[in-house]
This record gives sequence, C-alpha cells and structure tokens, in this order.
Amino acid sequence: MDQIAVDRIYQSFAAQSMMATLGAKMVDVTSGVVRIEAPILPGARQQQGFGHAGLSFSIGDSAAGYAALTSLPLDMEVVTAEIKINLLAPARGQKLIAIGKVVKPGKRLCVVTADVFASDNGQETLIAILQGTMVPVPV
Amino acid sequence: MDQIAVDRIYQSFAAQSMMATLGAKMVDVTSGVVRIEAPILPGARQQQGFGHAGLSFSIGDSAAGYAALTSLPLDMEVVTAEIKINLLAPARGQKLIAIGKVVKPGKRLCVVTADVFASDNGQETLIAILQGTMVPVPV
Amino acid sequence: MDQIAVDRIYQSFAAQSMMATLGAKMVDVTSGVVRIEAPILPGARQQQGFGHAGLSFSIGDSAAGYAALTSLPLDMEVVTAEIKINLLAPARGQKLIAIGKVVKPGKRLCVVTADVFASDNGQETLIAILQGTMVPVPV
Amino acid sequence: MDQIAVDRIYQSFAAQSMMATLGAKMVDVTSGVVRIEAPILPGARQQQGFGHAGLSFSIGDSAAGYAALTSLPLDMEVVTAEIKINLLAPARGQKLIAIGKVVKPGKRLCVVTADVFASDNGQETLIAILQGTMVPVPV
Repeated sequence: MDQIAVDRIYQSFAAQSMMATLGAKMVDVTSGVVRIEAPILPGARQQQGFGHAGLSFSIGDSAAGYAALTSLPLDMEVVTAEIKINLLAPARGQKLIAIGKVVKPGKRLCVVTADVFASDNGQETLIAILQGTMVPVPV
Repeated sequence: MDQIAVDRIYQSFAAQSMMATLGAKMVDVTSGVVRIEAPILPGARQQQGFGHAGLSFSIGDSAAGYAALTSLPLDMEVVTAEIKINLLAPARGQKLIAIGKVVKPGKRLCVVTADVFASDNGQETLIAILQGTMVPVPV
Repeated sequence: MDQIAVDRIYQSFAAQSMMATLGAKMVDVTSGVVRIEAPILPGARQQQGFGHAGLSFSIGDSAAGYAALTSLPLDMEVVTAEIKINLLAPARGQKLIAIGKVVKPGKRLCVVTADVFASDNGQETLIAILQGTMVPVPV
Repeated sequence: MDQIAVDRIYQSFAAQSMMATLGAKMVDVTSGVVRIEAPILPGARQQQGFGHAGLSFSIGDSAAGYAALTSLPLDMEVVTAEIKINLLAPARGQKLIAIGKVVKPGKRLCVVTADVFASDNGQETLIAILQGTMVPVPV
C-alpha cells in the first residue's frame, strides 16, 4: 500500500472517538490486514471484572472494517452491515489485540473476519472470532 | 418477578463498568424483557460522527443478556457465547434504546434477541437487530 | 401485491430444484411475508432421526429471500449474502413451516428474518430463528 | 485418532439421510478437521441454476459438526446450536468441498468454522465461510 492509502486509514481511525474512549490504537496496516490493540481499562469491564464483550466487539469490528478499507479506492469508506462474534474465553489480562482480515473484497460487499486475543503477562489467548460484511460507501 | 430477582439484575448491571463509561442505564426489567438506554456520547462515535457499532452492540448485548438472566435462578449468571448484529441505519440522534428479549430460555443455553432504536428529537428508528446465545454459569 | 408480482415469486420458487427435492411448497406470499412448508422426509434427517439443520436452514433461507423479493421491482432478483440460524429444539414431527419476513427493505441490502416451526400431530413448536441479509441483483 | 473414533464418525455421517440425498461423502477425518464433498446435483439448485445456499450450508454444517465430534469422547454426540454462513460467490461447477475445523473445543460448547469451495473443472473457489457453535450431548 502507498503511504497516502495508509495515512487515510489512520486518519479515519483517529476520527472514531469510541476508539479513543477505549484506549485503542491502530498498530499495523497492510494490504488486507489491520491490527488494533486496546488495554482492558477499568471502565471497559463486565460484571465479573473481565473485559466487556462490547470491547472485544468494538476493536474486532474496527479492525475488520479497516482491513476492508485497505482494499478500496481512496474515495470510498466502509460501514458495517453485519458482524457476528463468538466468544471463546474471558477477556482476562492487560490488553486485547484484534487482527482484522479481508476474506473476499468487493465493490458492493466485502466479507471480513477478525481474531481477538487477550494478552495476560505476555501470554496471548484467542478469546473471540468475528465474521461479517462491510459495505463500501462514497466518502 | 419478585423484587430480589429484579434487584440483583440492577446490581449486576451496575457492576459492568463498560455501561457506566457509555452512560447506559437499565430502565426496565420484566420477565424475559430488559430495556437499556444510552446517550450517543461524544466519545462513542465512529468516523462519520454517528454512534459506533460497538455502542449499539454493547447495549444490545447487555439487554439480551439481562433478559436471559430474568429467566434464571438467583445462583446463576450469564455470559455471552455468541451474538450477531445487523445494522439497519446510522445511529443518529441523542440516545439509543436497546430492548432485549428471551426467545428460548434454558439451563444450558438461552437464545435471545435485541432490537436497538435511535431516538432523534423524539423520533425512534430501528437501527440494529441482534440474535445470540447466552450461557448460564454459576455465580 | 398485484398478481404479476406474486406469480413471479411462485415461478422463481418453482425454479429452485432444491425446494422440490425437499418437498417444500410455497403456501403464502404477501407483502413482506412469505410462508414455506416442507415435510420432514425420510431423506432429510440427521443422525438422530430428526430433520437436518440443513432442511430448516434451506426453507428458512428461501422464505426470507422471497420475503425480500416481495419488496423489490420485477426486474430484480435476490441472493443471500449471509444468514445465521439458531436452533432451539429438534425438528420433530411431520412437517416444518418457515415464515420469512422483511425487517428493513433496501435497493442495496435487505435485512430479513425467518421463524421455523415443527408441526407434530398438529402441535407447532418454534425450532429455529434466522437473521440475515439479502442482496438485490438484476434478473 | 484411533480407528474406533474415526469409524464412529463415518457411521454417524452415514446415518444422516440428508447427506445421502445430497450425494455428500465424508472423505477425510483427522483430529479437529473433517472434509465432506458433494456434487452439485440437478436437484440441489437455486433459481439461477447454481447450487442452493442450503447445499453449501448443509455440508458446511455437517463438516463443522463432525470436526467438533473428533474432539469428544465416544459417549458424546454433537448438535448444532447456531451457525452463520457468508456466501462469497455462486456455487458454480461440478462439486462442493466443505472443510470443517475446531477453533475451540469444549465439553459444554465447541466453536467451529467451515470453508466451502466450489470445484469447476478442477478450479477451486472459496464460495462460503461458516462460523458456529456445536453442543456436545450424550449419545
């Protein structure tokens, strides 16, 4: 990917205030693959003290969406049409890592997946998988 | 539902720090149906300025989960096994309203749905539907 | 709906050889709602002798797709982009009934649901719910 | 896997009359991975003449379910709790190949995926991906 294409993805991410609220950072953008990391903040937990499903979903959805965006021209954005998350284990540890991937790019629909890992003292565990559809829309 | 059963649901909700971060409030709990409302805070938006999918998901998931909990004895909690969201329209307006419902209660698995509405100057629009599975676990 | 619009839906259904193989019949078509019924044939079972998940899925998917089609002009068809099924109970009895509905029509995407019931000696039980996305395409 | 464990999976598959109706064959069973193939029979098509979504779903669901079963003791069976399919391309060609995999085994829930390919004159195309949950139950 050229630098302009990468930059505009970082800019779009920076415009998602939800990501800032969750402390999420986009840490890698390559063609078809995007990595987002977020701490499990005190304010992002469920009733047992683990990370909330909404945290895993939010960064998984964003990673998947931006992975789709790497496959699109600069005059297109994406919105999520639908996405499903299966939760495999509690979000336990210090931070979460979401890796979004494009399975099938397309001008009309883009099928994506994301894997979410919890990092607990350096040990990574797969805690959620997502599968969904992004829709390209004009900027 | 008796008051003890209702109270423990409000207490569990109060222990979800993610809900406080999003400004979400549980506003109604009846047998099999739970209503959660949240403002679309400046810090809960996507890149176009609408509510983030993660906001709709978070309150939809919690409403569905607590709806499941209304069908369970007091020594059980629930965790989300999986849930899918279809986004129908942008989360535009002042607040979101999630209504979670039990479709099929069960001691092993509980199938749930949630509808999420956006309220824009008093006009409510259905913006997302969720369908998922909650798993009862001992407290 | 006018008769031409209804007729073309029955014709499209008749062209789905999978429906004939499963013995499925379209029994009602109204604006936004389609009903399909199928016997639980000896050749449509899983290993325990109940109807196969693929049977419930097939008629649920077709009912949802044709419900979407009722909302579209005559020069459009639909294809399934994605659909999720939650199975609530075994497909036990003599026949299955799928009722597909449009939740959100659209020229680009159409969000749909379907409920599948098993009829056992006249007693109907909800055995599956589906939630998905149909994509309009030119005929 | 020992031969007894493999044999009982082939026997369970042979008891699914739906698989025989679709002409499906289980062609490989290893720990955590199962491969099922099916011709696109004249009687398994949608209205445009491609394989029906119900065909892709049926063999994908069975491949995923039997992949789950490879991780379970001999006194357990599995049933599908829920599964979602994203369709990527038309089921065009002579046969479909479904490869089911275990993502997270478990005595209570087993999370699985499946990839479905269409083979057209020897050229294989990924046409569908599935993500779901299997529930172990006593035989």
